[in-house]
Amino acid sequence: MSEERIEIADLGEFGLIRHLTKNIEIHNASTVLGVGDDAAVIDHFGKQTVVTTDMLIEGVHFDLMYTPLKHLGYKAVVVNLSDIYAMNATPTQITVSLGLSNRISVQALDELYEGIYAACDKYGVDLVGGDTCSSQKGFIISVTAIGEVTPGKFVKRSTAQKGDLICCSGDLGAAYVGLLFLEREKRIFQEHPGVQPDLENESYVIGRLLKPEARKDIIEFLEQSEIIPTSMIDVSDGLSSEILHISQQSGLGVRLYEDKIPISEDMKRAAFKFEIDPTACALSGGEDYELLFTLQQSEYDKLVLNEQISVIGYMTEPEEGAKIITKGGHTHDITAQGWNAFKGRQ
Amino acid sequence: MSEERIEIADLGEFGLIRHLTKNIEIHNASTVLGVGDDAAVIDHFGKQTVVTTDMLIEGVHFDLMYTPLKHLGYKAVVVNLSDIYAMNATPTQITVSLGLSNRISVQALDELYEGIYAACDKYGVDLVGGDTCSSQKGFIISVTAIGEVTPGKFVKRSTAQKGDLICCSGDLGAAYVGLLFLEREKRIFQEHPGVQPDLENESYVIGRLLKPEARKDIIEFLEQSEIIPTSMIDVSDGLSSEILHISQQSGLGVRLYEDKIPISEDMKRAAFKFEIDPTACALSGGEDYELLFTLQQSEYDKLVLNEQISVIGYMTEPEEGAKIITKGGHTHDITAQGWNAFKGRQ
Repeated sequence: MSEERIEIADLGEFGLIRHLTKNIEIHNASTVLGVGDDAAVIDHFGKQTVVTTDMLIEGVHFDLMYTPLKHLGYKAVVVNLSDIYAMNATPTQITVSLGLSNRISVQALDELYEGIYAACDKYGVDLVGGDTCSSQKGFIISVTAIGEVTPGKFVKRSTAQKGDLICCSGDLGAAYVGLLFLEREKRIFQEHPGVQPDLENESYVIGRLLKPEARKDIIEFLEQSEIIPTSMIDVSDGLSSEILHISQQSGLGVRLYEDKIPISEDMKRAAFKFEIDPTACALSGGEDYELLFTLQQSEYDKLVLNEQISVIGYMTEPEEGAKIITKGGHTHDITAQGWNAFKGRQ
Repeated sequence: MSEERIEIADLGEFGLIRHLTKNIEIHNASTVLGVGDDAAVIDHFGKQTVVTTDMLIEGVHFDLMYTPLKHLGYKAVVVNLSDIYAMNATPTQITVSLGLSNRISVQALDELYEGIYAACDKYGVDLVGGDTCSSQKGFIISVTAIGEVTPGKFVKRSTAQKGDLICCSGDLGAAYVGLLFLEREKRIFQEHPGVQPDLENESYVIGRLLKPEARKDIIEFLEQSEIIPTSMIDVSDGLSSEILHISQQSGLGVRLYEDKIPISEDMKRAAFKFEIDPTACALSGGEDYELLFTLQQSEYDKLVLNEQISVIGYMTEPEEGAKIITKGGHTHDITAQGWNAFKGRQ
């Protein structure tokens, strides 16, 4: 018994919104008024409000051919939460705006919302508003995340100090290699529709692309350890691009060590299948959603035992520029080769 | 000497953002940290935060053939501010996310941002963040507006009381008639490219569509007059649809009087050119961005002298339903015939 496809037009805009929001659970006392009015009302009770927004567009940021809608919903939320954590803040609310073509059924939207709500549950944030409209072509999802931070405790990109250690959470580059696998399988499928995808053993790198997580745990660890980073950013465009933001905005140089950059064994093995350099994936790949931060050298002892944090270099005088020391001992300039949304991978 | 077209790709994403935000002025002390980091930081100093979001999509919400980009930028901001005012709150910040096709030059984007900044200046709000990405087809603009309100002073849709007066600001229906003119001229132009548009004398209705204003003045008047509406909503989908939201969410009936609905002379004259009923335009037209609100009868004296506010009916027992009394004395059910984003005008 297959369920009959329900068209969005059958429910109408308001019916659709009611359908999608009927099971909302509120996690935060700060959510004074949620979905269903002209605007939501939030009370952060003396804390400062942190706000960020990200838009994902079909064909640019995701391909529905290999992106399950549930994962897309989850990821659209997580990439925004990652920006809130990168301010050393705690996300509390989101709004979600959707542009939908009539290709999308209500059942498909339900899957998308399953992913959105799964992320809300996992990170303890509330969906408080949004907008749902039709799109002539393609699927668009625009999320705004709101968070809170104790006044003055937020961490910017521009406040790294000379001599600070550069730290990175988790491992880098895997999401990019995951993308390479999915693009390859798409091409094979298009040429030979009968061939089954060969993605066994690649679940780690593919999972990193399709269902990333934001590093809530790292922010909690820093708080528990009484570490306030001197600067912080999340890794959405690749390590090179992100460390250059910190370097340029702080007016300092950077020295990274290739052999310190955290790379997983799964990613390394996968990268070799494409005959590409794992370090290049970490530097330029993007979409890892790890946290990159700097801190005073005196804090080193507090994090040395945390296996989820790697020290990968330090901040230098501005005249020394942004450099990476390779495993072979050579020194190279760090250049931004990350994702450029207007030119594609460069 | 015509200026050479600059492609967005020539600047790159970060160059583009720097270019578009280099002249930002900050209007509000609540804007602690603006554009240029993972997220913005806002401190409403004990007030509650109000948040709303709206997405505009080319071909659905606007037609670039007759929408100047400057007006589009202005309107995309204003429609969001209108939602903040409809909560009886004051807008303070916005974020703007754009999906851009390569059809758009940097100069065109500059025009769009001129309109965005003009709205920011007029309403005293700060642009604090956003996202800029490419779109394969069509132009997408998603704005989130943030505002503040004294704790508990926000006004919902669901709190109208039986016997309350129903009030409306400004006049209704003109934006819809403006749309009819522009659509007519577009058809004529497509069929006979040499014909000059015939829009003389229609500047009021066309202006209402292309460059709407949010009713900041009404919210200020209500505050000065010490009037707190019992419920409020802004008129984006037409009077019928909006009053039904108040009626349904408040669990009450409604009685409107056709002859009290505010309609401008310019709109009436324009509607007759299309042989359509001005009242129908007011009830179902949408995009007026006026405020619709209810208040206790005892407050009537405080607003009777304000020519920008019309009393158009009152809230009744739920059993009496939602009715309109026509000029001829007949009683009709009010039905939602406003804009349905998934079916078009019904």
